[in-house]
Amino acid sequence: MRRITKALLAATIVLIAATGLFAAEGTADVVKKADLDAVTNNLNIVWTLVAAILVFWMQAGFAMVEAGFTRAKNAVNIIMKNLMDFSIGTIAFFMVGFGLMFGATKSGLLGGSNFMMDGIIGTGGGTEWGYTFVIFQTVFAATAATIVSGAMAERTKFTGYLTYSFFICLIIYPVFGKWAWGSLFAGGGNGANGWLEGLKTGAFCDFAGSTVVHSVGGWLALAGALVLGPRIGKYGPDGKPKAIPGHNITLAALGVFILWMGWFGFNPGSTTTGNGSIGRIAMTTNLAAAAGAIFAMFTAWFMFKKPDASMALNGALAGLVAITAPCNTVTPMGALIIGIIAGILVVLSVTFIDSKLKIDDPVGAVSVHGVNGLWGTLACGLFNAEKILGTGDASTGLFYGGGINQLISQFIGAGSAFVWAFGTGLILFIAIKKTIGLRVSKEEELKGLDIEEHGMEAYSGFQIFTNQ
Amino acid sequence: MRRITKALLAATIVLIAATGLFAAEGTADVVKKADLDAVTNNLNIVWTLVAAILVFWMQAGFAMVEAGFTRAKNAVNIIMKNLMDFSIGTIAFFMVGFGLMFGATKSGLLGGSNFMMDGIIGTGGGTEWGYTFVIFQTVFAATAATIVSGAMAERTKFTGYLTYSFFICLIIYPVFGKWAWGSLFAGGGNGANGWLEGLKTGAFCDFAGSTVVHSVGGWLALAGALVLGPRIGKYGPDGKPKAIPGHNITLAALGVFILWMGWFGFNPGSTTTGNGSIGRIAMTTNLAAAAGAIFAMFTAWFMFKKPDASMALNGALAGLVAITAPCNTVTPMGALIIGIIAGILVVLSVTFIDSKLKIDDPVGAVSVHGVNGLWGTLACGLFNAEKILGTGDASTGLFYGGGINQLISQFIGAGSAFVWAFGTGLILFIAIKKTIGLRVSKEEELKGLDIEEHGMEAYSGFQIFTNQ
Amino acid sequence: MRRITKALLAATIVLIAATGLFAAEGTADVVKKADLDAVTNNLNIVWTLVAAILVFWMQAGFAMVEAGFTRAKNAVNIIMKNLMDFSIGTIAFFMVGFGLMFGATKSGLLGGSNFMMDGIIGTGGGTEWGYTFVIFQTVFAATAATIVSGAMAERTKFTGYLTYSFFICLIIYPVFGKWAWGSLFAGGGNGANGWLEGLKTGAFCDFAGSTVVHSVGGWLALAGALVLGPRIGKYGPDGKPKAIPGHNITLAALGVFILWMGWFGFNPGSTTTGNGSIGRIAMTTNLAAAAGAIFAMFTAWFMFKKPDASMALNGALAGLVAITAPCNTVTPMGALIIGIIAGILVVLSVTFIDSKLKIDDPVGAVSVHGVNGLWGTLACGLFNAEKILGTGDASTGLFYGGGINQLISQFIGAGSAFVWAFGTGLILFIAIKKTIGLRVSKEEELKGLDIEEHGMEAYSGFQIFTNQ
Repeated sequence: MRRITKALLAATIVLIAATGLFAAEGTADVVKKADLDAVTNNLNIVWTLVAAILVFWMQAGFAMVEAGFTRAKNAVNIIMKNLMDFSIGTIAFFMVGFGLMFGATKSGLLGGSNFMMDGIIGTGGGTEWGYTFVIFQTVFAATAATIVSGAMAERTKFTGYLTYSFFICLIIYPVFGKWAWGSLFAGGGNGANGWLEGLKTGAFCDFAGSTVVHSVGGWLALAGALVLGPRIGKYGPDGKPKAIPGHNITLAALGVFILWMGWFGFNPGSTTTGNGSIGRIAMTTNLAAAAGAIFAMFTAWFMFKKPDASMALNGALAGLVAITAPCNTVTPMGALIIGIIAGILVVLSVTFIDSKLKIDDPVGAVSVHGVNGLWGTLACGLFNAEKILGTGDASTGLFYGGGINQLISQFIGAGSAFVWAFGTGLILFIAIKKTIGLRVSKEEELKGLDIEEHGMEAYSGFQIFTNQ
Repeated sequence: MRRITKALLAATIVLIAATGLFAAEGTADVVKKADLDAVTNNLNIVWTLVAAILVFWMQAGFAMVEAGFTRAKNAVNIIMKNLMDFSIGTIAFFMVGFGLMFGATKSGLLGGSNFMMDGIIGTGGGTEWGYTFVIFQTVFAATAATIVSGAMAERTKFTGYLTYSFFICLIIYPVFGKWAWGSLFAGGGNGANGWLEGLKTGAFCDFAGSTVVHSVGGWLALAGALVLGPRIGKYGPDGKPKAIPGHNITLAALGVFILWMGWFGFNPGSTTTGNGSIGRIAMTTNLAAAAGAIFAMFTAWFMFKKPDASMALNGALAGLVAITAPCNTVTPMGALIIGIIAGILVVLSVTFIDSKLKIDDPVGAVSVHGVNGLWGTLACGLFNAEKILGTGDASTGLFYGGGINQLISQFIGAGSAFVWAFGTGLILFIAIKKTIGLRVSKEEELKGLDIEEHGMEAYSGFQIFTNQ
Repeated sequence: MRRITKALLAATIVLIAATGLFAAEGTADVVKKADLDAVTNNLNIVWTLVAAILVFWMQAGFAMVEAGFTRAKNAVNIIMKNLMDFSIGTIAFFMVGFGLMFGATKSGLLGGSNFMMDGIIGTGGGTEWGYTFVIFQTVFAATAATIVSGAMAERTKFTGYLTYSFFICLIIYPVFGKWAWGSLFAGGGNGANGWLEGLKTGAFCDFAGSTVVHSVGGWLALAGALVLGPRIGKYGPDGKPKAIPGHNITLAALGVFILWMGWFGFNPGSTTTGNGSIGRIAMTTNLAAAAGAIFAMFTAWFMFKKPDASMALNGALAGLVAITAPCNTVTPMGALIIGIIAGILVVLSVTFIDSKLKIDDPVGAVSVHGVNGLWGTLACGLFNAEKILGTGDASTGLFYGGGINQLISQFIGAGSAFVWAFGTGLILFIAIKKTIGLRVSKEEELKGLDIEEHGMEAYSGFQIFTNQ
């Protein structure tokens, strides 16, 4: 009995010592879940900020594409518009837009908090997420605004331009953004959800913004080009369209490479999470872009007998726009098919808008962003794959055995984007036209906007034929 | 009693088993703090290297801005200068500069170790921090050097250029760097601190280098432009300045977009830590840049009746330079105000230097980097906010209830930067002028530096009027 | 006795409580190694994807360098070729190339699984590595293909171009890739190793691809330029070479800056691991590039009496190509020496190929990628340093006390690359020449490929002398 008691005594001492050691290790050296979560959070912040920087970089891409595809006499003007829509958009979105898009809402139509980063600033820096989310969303908002300038290039008054790009980032983009992405900041179920997130046929699927960013920008561009009318000389007395070649194809190509690069932030970055899925999304994004470029080239080759560079470059962009919504939900093979169709579609659409609708869109913005944004959005309802989503996922597309429901949601979302963006666009552009004016004078347009609006030329010292 | 003893026996056995299990898990599977710290360290390395790559990219931005804002006949020369200042700077900073800036020091004036990465190489690769710190600091040093080339463009002798850019990265930049940032590598209290870090009114505040990089570069540029004199034809017989327009505004605009992008590495990267603060710094940086662009445009519009593109582009850069020091210590609203003032200031400064001081600075480098670097540095003493710094922080600025102390430190730091950089700059440029020569011949300047210095032209095949 | 028993009882209760607490913490809050490994894995994914994006960006760099160094009348064509080789290469590598390069193999000659991402898709997204590895390898494959277009610029038929770039990414690059890097995906010893990884003198050392990517591209370019013959007017009736200047040196310089930036993904990214070594590799990469630029400039200055910009720009690229193989195994000082030799070598090689071999390589691709890829590969056998590799490492180079073995392996690897790439290149180009045709007609070449092949010009509105 004593032996047992002694043994117990010894064992207890050992146990106390062991537990003590453990306790010491526990408090000083063992890592808790919260510590690891903080590191994961920081990793997500680093990834998301890198992605935001890449999306910012797309502003340079748009500037180069739009300048390159238009005439030398308007190059300074295009540059200024791209610089200013980002600058004005940054401030409008910071002041008002972010709050409309991600603030609290009852109706799911309009947010009403978080203006001027209220509730985000001052909560510390260590592992705070809000700051990074705001900069990521800011560069997205500015992308929607900058799409419009291409379609309205070479004839829009500078003051008119500043006005409408302010309202796009202030109201038009954020409101639709609330409808589709409202819950992204605060999380679901807390009164920030948009109405498209709660459709009975399943939440509207637009992972990185084929509709939210690109179609909205594209339909605004369509409204703008319509209200503005074509450039002088674009349509002959017989109504036939005349090609007005861009002045710098190497610059435009550089712009496309910049945009392609930036899209690796746009799509994989929309996870706002640094994990294996970003590599998969980079693959779907890249395959669709490559297929878009190749098939736009072959389509143009077939139709016009030459492999046109503008079409091939726009084909890459069309593939990128189309894969933006479904980039996280389709297989690489699905992405390839979506890109192929985007490449064919952009050539047909550019030709149709140019020759049949007779709307003058100098860089093809409506076809690239509007039409292919629509196509990519619908493609979710067709190509979303269980292999990626998980077995039995309700958002599986029609071609992968998921039924018609998701496709219905996609039509509802894409349709409401058209109604909202084209409708508010028409109102906005007509209002500007009736007040401060939307279009420059005939003399100014012929002479070039650079000299008249900005008092300078883009290529001083070069012999350039501006009477073209 | 036996029952109790038996119960104790059983409990002890269970405990031994439990502790045993725990110990097994402890040695094999439980994560220690050091393991997690290693991952955090690696995350910081990844973020800092990405930031370093973005800061490297600013070299391309400077090259494009400076080439675009000058004449076509000197474009090859500008390109070569930008390529060479980075290349020579890289090697000078590796050999000597890094050691002067971050090595051990007693006086706080000059470091004396870590030359040629001594004490850094060979310590392993796993989680080592030193390597990444060296590359990050290398690209910063090269930024200071490259600022100078813009102010001295279109007339500086190539051999003179190579000489002074070597000395800037070898000595001038690193010495001031030691004063302000000496402790960054080794940590405080170990004998690497610079004297500006130990001011009685509080450590000099220059988070990412408004003074250390930009003002130092700007005051060197001022010294260079003064010693060199204006370009032929810049001032008429009546002393009135003549505008000499740049040859490629789309290229210059691309350069500004590149610089803006690179600044997202420059400012948020100066944390050298991947956490929530990088998103906040990206927001302050972006808001100041946007405000700078807008207000420079409106100021120019008001003064010259046209929204000048060069001013708007320089306004964005002015906002970026100004927010560089206070990016981590002010609120977004503070950043916006700092940017607005920077935008107005750059237009006034460019006009004043051009018309009143009659110093020929082809790209506005002194106004953008010198004057706005000064403004941003002083702004720390005005706008530093407790909301960001923490309640009662001694570096809080005057406008936010922090008293005059930090502002005094800012004047001391900025003043010593002017004395050091402008003073050593004058000595260096005059020494070069008296020996190998600083300026090309009149014939060479008129014909263009490309043909005379490099035996080639930038735009072969294009019709260009070089007699301008 | 009772006291002891009571004390034991109390102690046991405390212990039970303590262990209980621990157990609770253990299951709910203590972090396991697998959790931490998942975060590390995600960090590696983020770093590798960022690196992949930077390598993608090099496509823009090649496009700008090749366009800038050739004539304006062929700029659209060069742009289209660069866009298309990446697009076609993406799809060819996805379909077939990746499987040949990284799939299972018995012989070490050719992989036979993982086609179309088989075995990679659908394994989840959380912490999956395969997706990111595929995109990283895709952008590498496309780099090899795009090198060729520079050497064959201004005279290659577009359909011929599309054909050969397809086969390079489909077969030629992946097969040599298998030989040198076959085990990278699946890990060693699992039947994916290439034969060059198992040499008796030690595994062939080519960390980031001086041989696998650059020499393979360079020797293919050599075969292509040989089969194609020189441009009209390149060699006079006396056989003397005539300089055909590029049309846009600022664009070419931008391309070099883009490539330099991209190389910070190419080399440090080849770790596919985010840790301290990436900073070290960035330093060796940067030092070699800087030394290459400086010494190419001085060599050209010495030989031609002027500091030629094309040579300095190519010198930076030569340094980058040369450091690619040894970037992770040499000291910074070793990197500096490797870069110096690369800078001298590229000028000698360009002159030799142009004047002695009389092979017309418009942008110097064979010298930059082929010759300097060879030099960098051999440099591993000379400069690999124990200080970096660890004491007694068998791959230590000859100059650092490691004997001749590694150098022998380097000769075997580099030699087999030449035989494979130059050999298959000759067969491929001759086959195309005999069937669909490799070269445009004399009229087309004189008029420019842009108008004839693509029906457009790059710089509409500019006065350009195309009869040059």
